[in-house]
Amino acid sequence: MLKHALYLDPETGRVQDVPRGEVCPRPKGILWIDLEVTDRADVEWLKGCFGFHPLALEDCLKSGQRPKLDHYDGYAFLDFYAAAFDPEKARLKTEEIDLFLGEGYLVTAHKAPMPVLDEVRQRWETATESTTGGASYLLYILLGTVVDAYFPVVDQMEEQLEVLEEMLFERFEQSVITRIFTLKKDLLLMRKVVAPTRDVCLLLLRRESHLIAPGTAIYLQDVYDHLIRVADSIDTYRDLVSGAVDAYLSVTANRTNDTMKRLTSISAVLMSVTLVAGIYGMNFQHMPELSWKWGYEFALGLMIAIALGLTILFKALRYF
Amino acid sequence: MLKHALYLDPETGRVQDVPRGEVCPRPKGILWIDLEVTDRADVEWLKGCFGFHPLALEDCLKSGQRPKLDHYDGYAFLDFYAAAFDPEKARLKTEEIDLFLGEGYLVTAHKAPMPVLDEVRQRWETATESTTGGASYLLYILLGTVVDAYFPVVDQMEEQLEVLEEMLFERFEQSVITRIFTLKKDLLLMRKVVAPTRDVCLLLLRRESHLIAPGTAIYLQDVYDHLIRVADSIDTYRDLVSGAVDAYLSVTANRTNDTMKRLTSISAVLMSVTLVAGIYGMNFQHMPELSWKWGYEFALGLMIAIALGLTILFKALRYF
Amino acid sequence: MLKHALYLDPETGRVQDVPRGEVCPRPKGILWIDLEVTDRADVEWLKGCFGFHPLALEDCLKSGQRPKLDHYDGYAFLDFYAAAFDPEKARLKTEEIDLFLGEGYLVTAHKAPMPVLDEVRQRWETATESTTGGASYLLYILLGTVVDAYFPVVDQMEEQLEVLEEMLFERFEQSVITRIFTLKKDLLLMRKVVAPTRDVCLLLLRRESHLIAPGTAIYLQDVYDHLIRVADSIDTYRDLVSGAVDAYLSVTANRTNDTMKRLTSISAVLMSVTLVAGIYGMNFQHMPELSWKWGYEFALGLMIAIALGLTILFKALRYF
Amino acid sequence: MLKHALYLDPETGRVQDVPRGEVCPRPKGILWIDLEVTDRADVEWLKGCFGFHPLALEDCLKSGQRPKLDHYDGYAFLDFYAAAFDPEKARLKTEEIDLFLGEGYLVTAHKAPMPVLDEVRQRWETATESTTGGASYLLYILLGTVVDAYFPVVDQMEEQLEVLEEMLFERFEQSVITRIFTLKKDLLLMRKVVAPTRDVCLLLLRRESHLIAPGTAIYLQDVYDHLIRVADSIDTYRDLVSGAVDAYLSVTANRTNDTMKRLTSISAVLMSVTLVAGIYGMNFQHMPELSWKWGYEFALGLMIAIALGLTILFKALRYF
Amino acid sequence: MLKHALYLDPETGRVQDVPRGEVCPRPKGILWIDLEVTDRADVEWLKGCFGFHPLALEDCLKSGQRPKLDHYDGYAFLDFYAAAFDPEKARLKTEEIDLFLGEGYLVTAHKAPMPVLDEVRQRWETATESTTGGASYLLYILLGTVVDAYFPVVDQMEEQLEVLEEMLFERFEQSVITRIFTLKKDLLLMRKVVAPTRDVCLLLLRRESHLIAPGTAIYLQDVYDHLIRVADSIDTYRDLVSGAVDAYLSVTANRTNDTMKRLTSISAVLMSVTLVAGIYGMNFQHMPELSWKWGYEFALGLMIAIALGLTILFKALRYF
Repeated sequence: MLKHALYLDPETGRVQDVPRGEVCPRPKGILWIDLEVTDRADVEWLKGCFGFHPLALEDCLKSGQRPKLDHYDGYAFLDFYAAAFDPEKARLKTEEIDLFLGEGYLVTAHKAPMPVLDEVRQRWETATESTTGGASYLLYILLGTVVDAYFPVVDQMEEQLEVLEEMLFERFEQSVITRIFTLKKDLLLMRKVVAPTRDVCLLLLRRESHLIAPGTAIYLQDVYDHLIRVADSIDTYRDLVSGAVDAYLSVTANRTNDTMKRLTSISAVLMSVTLVAGIYGMNFQHMPELSWKWGYEFALGLMIAIALGLTILFKALRYF
Repeated sequence: MLKHALYLDPETGRVQDVPRGEVCPRPKGILWIDLEVTDRADVEWLKGCFGFHPLALEDCLKSGQRPKLDHYDGYAFLDFYAAAFDPEKARLKTEEIDLFLGEGYLVTAHKAPMPVLDEVRQRWETATESTTGGASYLLYILLGTVVDAYFPVVDQMEEQLEVLEEMLFERFEQSVITRIFTLKKDLLLMRKVVAPTRDVCLLLLRRESHLIAPGTAIYLQDVYDHLIRVADSIDTYRDLVSGAVDAYLSVTANRTNDTMKRLTSISAVLMSVTLVAGIYGMNFQHMPELSWKWGYEFALGLMIAIALGLTILFKALRYF
Repeated sequence: MLKHALYLDPETGRVQDVPRGEVCPRPKGILWIDLEVTDRADVEWLKGCFGFHPLALEDCLKSGQRPKLDHYDGYAFLDFYAAAFDPEKARLKTEEIDLFLGEGYLVTAHKAPMPVLDEVRQRWETATESTTGGASYLLYILLGTVVDAYFPVVDQMEEQLEVLEEMLFERFEQSVITRIFTLKKDLLLMRKVVAPTRDVCLLLLRRESHLIAPGTAIYLQDVYDHLIRVADSIDTYRDLVSGAVDAYLSVTANRTNDTMKRLTSISAVLMSVTLVAGIYGMNFQHMPELSWKWGYEFALGLMIAIALGLTILFKALRYF
Repeated sequence: MLKHALYLDPETGRVQDVPRGEVCPRPKGILWIDLEVTDRADVEWLKGCFGFHPLALEDCLKSGQRPKLDHYDGYAFLDFYAAAFDPEKARLKTEEIDLFLGEGYLVTAHKAPMPVLDEVRQRWETATESTTGGASYLLYILLGTVVDAYFPVVDQMEEQLEVLEEMLFERFEQSVITRIFTLKKDLLLMRKVVAPTRDVCLLLLRRESHLIAPGTAIYLQDVYDHLIRVADSIDTYRDLVSGAVDAYLSVTANRTNDTMKRLTSISAVLMSVTLVAGIYGMNFQHMPELSWKWGYEFALGLMIAIALGLTILFKALRYF
Repeated sequence: MLKHALYLDPETGRVQDVPRGEVCPRPKGILWIDLEVTDRADVEWLKGCFGFHPLALEDCLKSGQRPKLDHYDGYAFLDFYAAAFDPEKARLKTEEIDLFLGEGYLVTAHKAPMPVLDEVRQRWETATESTTGGASYLLYILLGTVVDAYFPVVDQMEEQLEVLEEMLFERFEQSVITRIFTLKKDLLLMRKVVAPTRDVCLLLLRRESHLIAPGTAIYLQDVYDHLIRVADSIDTYRDLVSGAVDAYLSVTANRTNDTMKRLTSISAVLMSVTLVAGIYGMNFQHMPELSWKWGYEFALGLMIAIALGLTILFKALRYF
């Protein structure tokens, strides 16, 4: 389903909608076709109009591609992901974008509606370099907008990490560990999205020079720097998650040891005192203490003395 | 044992079976020989007909090769694996394929029957580029079909992983750990199959250009992309397996600590109450409580009070 | 806000302040503009005067950049961090510096006041090579001063590590583990600052030769060597932190095992002795020991004998 | 001590023994000198006859070299290891071989008798390419035979690993862990032997072309493939050993937790029942139950009821 | 402080001491200046005589450099470490050496006396290639002697490791873990000394050819091989240390579990027997067993039966 076809007049610098019928043959300026691919007819239309290679069109229909850059005759095919953090489920959500970059046109294809593209359109209409930068400048705006949206995602992950770290040490619930490992998975997934996109960006800078307008390279370099930063942050957070789990295990090991010592001590104290009671519960006929006047009080005193003595001893041994 | 010898007529584009006697000398079109190697006679026949190097023929007889690409004079020798997931034993099954790619012919050699080759034949007969792409296009169909079969294998592994992850946290049985480590082994084995195949594919793209028809390179690039994706997924799942085991250890460490605390508490409560019973079981002649009218009830009340008091204390200390 | 504009007269070798109005157009000698960027007006002024690229100016306004080197037409843009160790909070503090290096000028931009720059000015005024080395020699002084300030930071971290290591083995408190992991985070952060700066320095040595005066390269090589040393030390300390935590876990595991053994032993001793008391507390009519003259003493002796015997046994088994 | 000096007549293709006196000056065909180095005189003789460099000769006397390839004027010096698995001690045994490869001759030097060299001689005498391949073909036979002997070593290690893995989970003895770590050490040692040999082989293929006959390169490529496979297998087994130890730790952690729960339960049941006995052992004058007719039976019934009730409760809580 | 200035006459091949006054201007042969740097005057003298760069001289005064190779006009500056294992404290001791290599001279600077240099002098005086190899041959002798001294250090570390490994499994004391981690630190430190020296050596071979006499390269290659071996050994020992700690943790985890089981069993046995005593200690009026003739013996028998029965049960369950 054709979402919109936009045409930038190279002379006036104005962006205007093009009716579907006038898209082929292509006009002279810069054309941006945005397609929501719902069935095979959509890609068939693309094939008829632009003559794209079947392998690339096949990729537009499939999901779960790895971000990549394929070079075809006269155009390049890109594949990358927009990312968002769903605040309700606290989980990462990614959306695949397929993109054809040619001389004077850019075609984007995706399976679900992408609100980020409205922002791209707005920036394209207002940027002063849109006319001179050609289709590659539009590519920069698109990639730049998508990559800039990675930062809040990574920031929210960092926030989550800090909250979870604090919870980990304060009061443990199994849900914390589960959530930490969900975060770990999300970081892994985000890395899988970001790292190959970074490589794609480097390839664009290195190899696709005839499709990239000379003045646009510096902008793509900027996007590349941002991608390095995001990838770096993800690696750092993965290290921090591992560190937090290690720290938690150290603390737990220590707590278990402490609890063991306390158990040793309490058991020993109570058992010793009970032993005294047991001794004076024996039924021997000749037990002098039993007939003492203050025998009972003596026994209670002995119990208290033993309890106190052992408690002081164990305190000194740092068992409590 | 010759499974089938197929001949694609370059003019009609038809694929037809060739009787064994007419295989040598080779006809003009594209020839695909599929051999089920059962004894030395099979490779001897190959040697007589194609004059392959003894080292390559030796590899056809042996098992357990690492996926590789060897360059000989006028032909290349490839070695790779088809993979399947046996649903009954929940284990990975791999099948080695040896392959000779020459100008105008492709020879496949394997030890067991391979149903995947029937699918290859069908695709070869129907693909429009079979005539122009030469033997390298047939190689693409074969490699592509084998590699595409990796995806369901990896997907089933992911499914298994998710099931096992859930089981790990819900109710532990030793079989879960055993199955997780079986999965880990399978991922390792799958990686050993996929990673060198990926390198072989890259080498094909880079070095063997005279055997690869110009239009076929883009298809092999697609196979290469798929191999990267599979290898990436395997790495991700290996990380997830490690993460799951780590999470499990964290949870277990925590549970052990919790159990320790509960043991401490229950022991302390019961021991304290028992101590009271022990005290009033002593046989002193002068024990005023013993002759109280409500002495027994007092003792029971004391016991309940101590039990309640300690329970409340331990609840407050989060020991239960 | 313009902090200072300094001008080095190439003939006299004197450094003097330049009034803001005379900065543009630039004088013939070497000019150092130091800017404290507080709002967009500051970078607008830079744009007007030097014509810097909008992307670089944007980076001056933003925070949290990764150390980097961008090449523009006729000048280079650098981004790196000064680091200090806050002794009160025992935490790392970093301050970003943006820098433009051009033919005959250096522009530094930062968000907070930076006392380190006063030291740079002083060294620039007194160094004998300031005249011949051009702006690149000033860059060396600046980078060298910032990088030399990394050493005390890393030394303080090492000191902290040693203190914490000792505390870890002597007497455990949870705060030690928390502090160790704070240190681990700081080392990670410091690495994130140092490693890309090292790469920037290497790039400067390799690629930006026309902006670097021939005699200055050997000085930048020296800075590069220092950066390698700092990065190496950080890696070593990270290994040491991991080693310390591992050692701690080993020691704790051993202690828990020891405590368990001690618990086994004490419980067994006390329970055995209590059993004797229990036996002689039974109410059978025919219990010969009960009517013995020294029955009570016999029972007490039996208890002591059992206690001693078990203690000796457990000592021999290394349970205490 | 000269073990044997063999001479392959390039015309007849026959291999024959050469008396020691006729070794120098060298005959025209291919000469293989095998030397068991026992003292300095052996290497002195080599020096006199072939004029080898003192550094290489020094290496023949020393042990514990790392596999390497050194290039000298007109000849190459190689160093690698034969490996065997001693079935009695279940430990890896390696034997160093030093080798000089020159135009028309091969000199092998080792410290202990090496039965593998008899096999090399036999293969050399029968191989059809011995005459055309020159000394480099003899090198291939030697290296190939030594490397092929790595496979049974690695296979025996895998077998050991599987046996130990099974023992680990079935019934633990400390010897299993000790043996696993011995295996780990052997894998490490084997890797130290294999990995540099692989690099030496690659160097031979890349750089020493004038000493390697053109047709022999494909054979050395085969040896190189085998070395990659062995190195790969070793890495896989090291991963598997780590995995097994991890699995064991997970299972042990779980078992400890299970044992803790059982301890909690048994203690709680027995303590509760004992408490009942303690209560009715108190000596209060007014305890109505004591004079009940079925008091005793009531108490026993109460004990059984408590024991059963708690057992059912703990079963429900999965404590047993 | 000038330790010695040695002069090798290129014609006679004799090494003789040069009075301090005759060092500048330099004589024609090969000059070796050995300097013990105690204050700034020492390096000032060097500057006056050889005109070395201030940055290199600064490095002679400072400590804790990373082994490196800096290229200056007409000479090279090297920095590396001699290592020794202090047998008393069982700790690694390193000593930094700074070195200038020029056409016809070698200058060594260090802060403490270095006995290893006497050995260097002796080897220089006796070696036959001293005259032809120039200053680079003297560098080889120096580097070779220092690097050969690494082997006994690494061997002593291995010995320590084996002793500690054995202690770890036989009888644990906390000191063993502390010593293991000291060893780990030493290995880390040794690696920090060896790995960059290896890289320096490679750089010397690759880049400094005009300062290295043609025949000396093969000797430096030998030093390089030795450095690779030392670095390899260190990596292996680090792996072994980690493996030993892992093994120790596995064994401890297992022991803890065993102790837990034993505790469960002993507690259960003693508690059960005590329960019997408790039952017959109850004061019910109607307890038939109490008035049995062999009641007491029956109770004791019951206790022994329960104890034996449970012991056999727990033995069967492998709890002891």
